[in-house]
Amino acid sequence: MIKVGVLGARGRMGAEVCRAVRDADGMELAAAVDQGDGLDALTAAEVVVDFTHPGVVMDNLQWCVKHGIHAVVGTTGFDAARLDSVRSWLEEGTGNVLIAPNFGIGAVLMMQFARKAAPFFESVEVVETHHPNKADAPSGTARRTAELIAAARAEAGAAPFPDATSTALDGARGADVEGVRVHAVRMSGAVAHQEVILGGHGELFTLRHDSMNRESFMPGVVLAVREVAGLPDRLTIGIESLLGL
Amino acid sequence: MIKVGVLGARGRMGAEVCRAVRDADGMELAAAVDQGDGLDALTAAEVVVDFTHPGVVMDNLQWCVKHGIHAVVGTTGFDAARLDSVRSWLEEGTGNVLIAPNFGIGAVLMMQFARKAAPFFESVEVVETHHPNKADAPSGTARRTAELIAAARAEAGAAPFPDATSTALDGARGADVEGVRVHAVRMSGAVAHQEVILGGHGELFTLRHDSMNRESFMPGVVLAVREVAGLPDRLTIGIESLLGL
Amino acid sequence: MIKVGVLGARGRMGAEVCRAVRDADGMELAAAVDQGDGLDALTAAEVVVDFTHPGVVMDNLQWCVKHGIHAVVGTTGFDAARLDSVRSWLEEGTGNVLIAPNFGIGAVLMMQFARKAAPFFESVEVVETHHPNKADAPSGTARRTAELIAAARAEAGAAPFPDATSTALDGARGADVEGVRVHAVRMSGAVAHQEVILGGHGELFTLRHDSMNRESFMPGVVLAVREVAGLPDRLTIGIESLLGL
Amino acid sequence: MIKVGVLGARGRMGAEVCRAVRDADGMELAAAVDQGDGLDALTAAEVVVDFTHPGVVMDNLQWCVKHGIHAVVGTTGFDAARLDSVRSWLEEGTGNVLIAPNFGIGAVLMMQFARKAAPFFESVEVVETHHPNKADAPSGTARRTAELIAAARAEAGAAPFPDATSTALDGARGADVEGVRVHAVRMSGAVAHQEVILGGHGELFTLRHDSMNRESFMPGVVLAVREVAGLPDRLTIGIESLLGL
Repeated sequence: MIKVGVLGARGRMGAEVCRAVRDADGMELAAAVDQGDGLDALTAAEVVVDFTHPGVVMDNLQWCVKHGIHAVVGTTGFDAARLDSVRSWLEEGTGNVLIAPNFGIGAVLMMQFARKAAPFFESVEVVETHHPNKADAPSGTARRTAELIAAARAEAGAAPFPDATSTALDGARGADVEGVRVHAVRMSGAVAHQEVILGGHGELFTLRHDSMNRESFMPGVVLAVREVAGLPDRLTIGIESLLGL
Repeated sequence: MIKVGVLGARGRMGAEVCRAVRDADGMELAAAVDQGDGLDALTAAEVVVDFTHPGVVMDNLQWCVKHGIHAVVGTTGFDAARLDSVRSWLEEGTGNVLIAPNFGIGAVLMMQFARKAAPFFESVEVVETHHPNKADAPSGTARRTAELIAAARAEAGAAPFPDATSTALDGARGADVEGVRVHAVRMSGAVAHQEVILGGHGELFTLRHDSMNRESFMPGVVLAVREVAGLPDRLTIGIESLLGL
Repeated sequence: MIKVGVLGARGRMGAEVCRAVRDADGMELAAAVDQGDGLDALTAAEVVVDFTHPGVVMDNLQWCVKHGIHAVVGTTGFDAARLDSVRSWLEEGTGNVLIAPNFGIGAVLMMQFARKAAPFFESVEVVETHHPNKADAPSGTARRTAELIAAARAEAGAAPFPDATSTALDGARGADVEGVRVHAVRMSGAVAHQEVILGGHGELFTLRHDSMNRESFMPGVVLAVREVAGLPDRLTIGIESLLGL
Repeated sequence: MIKVGVLGARGRMGAEVCRAVRDADGMELAAAVDQGDGLDALTAAEVVVDFTHPGVVMDNLQWCVKHGIHAVVGTTGFDAARLDSVRSWLEEGTGNVLIAPNFGIGAVLMMQFARKAAPFFESVEVVETHHPNKADAPSGTARRTAELIAAARAEAGAAPFPDATSTALDGARGADVEGVRVHAVRMSGAVAHQEVILGGHGELFTLRHDSMNRESFMPGVVLAVREVAGLPDRLTIGIESLLGL
């Protein structure tokens, strides 16, 4: 039984993590801590999951490393300087740290498979569909996917995408994200969906991800809790390596 | 056995029509005529199919009406003035005329179903995908579909589409065709594909058409040949009424 | 303002109807009645919506007709004998009755469009996808869709579907519903989805419906409340006629 | 310039290979040989591509290895005994051999991605769609995909797929290929299409491959011609390692 502590346990994501840990085989919820509580209850835990906010996550993390407790972090705001700090703490303390910007297994597989497949096709475009209350277009995931595709093609020396368009309505061909066309559909009834379409020589290859709710991040968090103690590196970024990618 | 004559029989479309007529049950190819041939061979036909060009189609059509031969016309370029001329000829002659801008049954069904469904959903967008050699974006079919959707919603007094986008990359939300967003994907390996996506209140409804080659127009032409003699009007525009729409 | 009464107001569907009526423009919730309450509160309503159960719906309906209140009924269990009773009541009373087995606009459009399109293609199959807790395979909607397709093709004298399969694993070609092949996918993460695929001569035409939650029935109920007073017939079965189908 | 020889050059696949080699950057067609021609013309080649038949491919291959010419082989019929023979020839001769049952990059990516992703989802099913003239159901590719999925899940100790179906029409739930459900749609207008659907916890992940014609194998053959000389092993099975998988 892995003993798990949750930081930010009364937040939206933290509450879901508590529920997911309770439901998962082979782990139990040893401590649920939020703003105003002390961290001491977390000493009962072997792994701490942190979904808090950028203002407190560094203190949390330093405390975990000092106490030899593995940490799985979903809080955002890690830049190079922050990662350097974590690395320096890890030189002293025990325990591993996994920081992931995205725990959605489907989303991560989509991005990594897109990156792997991109050099082998002549054309690649991204179409994402979200509910109409979304403020940004395209979505952060779609932009990130396009950047990974562009980088993979640059590295492989792939040719530019063929496109003979000579007469176009404004916007018809989507946004240009480092040369990759990205189209954003806004649709009542939709949640969060993305397609990466790759094509060439009489074939199309499509990767599609449909996310119906935020619960979809939980399997990735549970996987990280299960694997963090055995990771080969003291600091791991992203869940890609846990997925054999 | 319906006796069929084909005008423009050596052209790309005409040659396909000849083949389709030969293969279809209940009809036979009575005459195949092209540039340089006289029209007299067509007197053997009950129905003439015209895939020629705007410069000669009016003479062909007048000849058919005068000889009491029904005509199925796929040639483009019919404006209001031309249609008025055809109507005036029909007052004298016998025989019916069907003129259709599109004989693709799937494409016509997609457009008409989109038009019918559009008022009952909060959101409607169009995504079309074509081979990268296509010059215009979006496709003519996608534009026409968007116009039909816009007209149907205006007539029904439907609300504007919800869209809270406040930060967007240029082009991300597609082209605006009378208020309907249209996205054009250009993809090696693709032929001609279109999706109309409608959404609201926890549901999505999608109409998708995939056209792999120009052969897909032939069932519509064969259907028109079969039905033209029995049409309730002397002049019919489009194959919609043959599809019970 | 249409004054609406809801019968079965504390049930799962009834509670959603109350919410939908309150949110809709041009109508207000005049009475919310459930088991144990008398029906007298409903005299404040011009239209009553009934989502109760087969054991009480007939009494409810007779009361509505007697009081000249229009009724929109989602309760199941109406056979020919019950419909005859309703018709005989309507000869005396005033008010219209609309009884619908399915208020999902998307689902009804999918079925009716499938029925309309079916005669014009060589092949038609149905693929439905539901969550893995579903007891029956295929779904009732998929069976009903297949029956409508089969009936439409029989009426049009359409040819049997081409299928050269000579070596098949058991079940590979799906279930046979009156000659139409129906495939049932059971998938964690799915809710209720259905595709009708139609194909012929180099083209595919696909109708797809995705239902994410039961809320998706509400626009159909609201539409029925709005239209029931003006319907041409005293008794209407299904929402098809409200959708212009 | 890689000098390429083609064996089986007048066959359907061989003729396409000749065309693809001529069109590809960085390679030229040095010899095109078929039944009745001697093999000596192939001494002009650095790489030989063999699309012949099981009765002659072993002799061809032995000749290539003996002459130190790299071989890319698409001919079928290689069992363990044949592979052992090739290995023993390679101990003596120079040159590498790549034997692949499938040169379709999209198809291979779909299978390998499905295998990688399968352990991370609760449900996985396969839906393939082919033209109605196909004799077997499901397709060989679909069966192979299901076997790879089943093996990956067994190795990862994944739980059985959830499925509460208690009332089913015969065949509704598809064929059972080592526990994985496979559904085969037969559709006029279709060519060769496959979807692998994976689902769990509020998300779906779909891999889709559409193959419009046999030309889609050529990029895989060209890739193999380009890479065979530099492969780390003398004998390589499949193009997976060329795709970084």
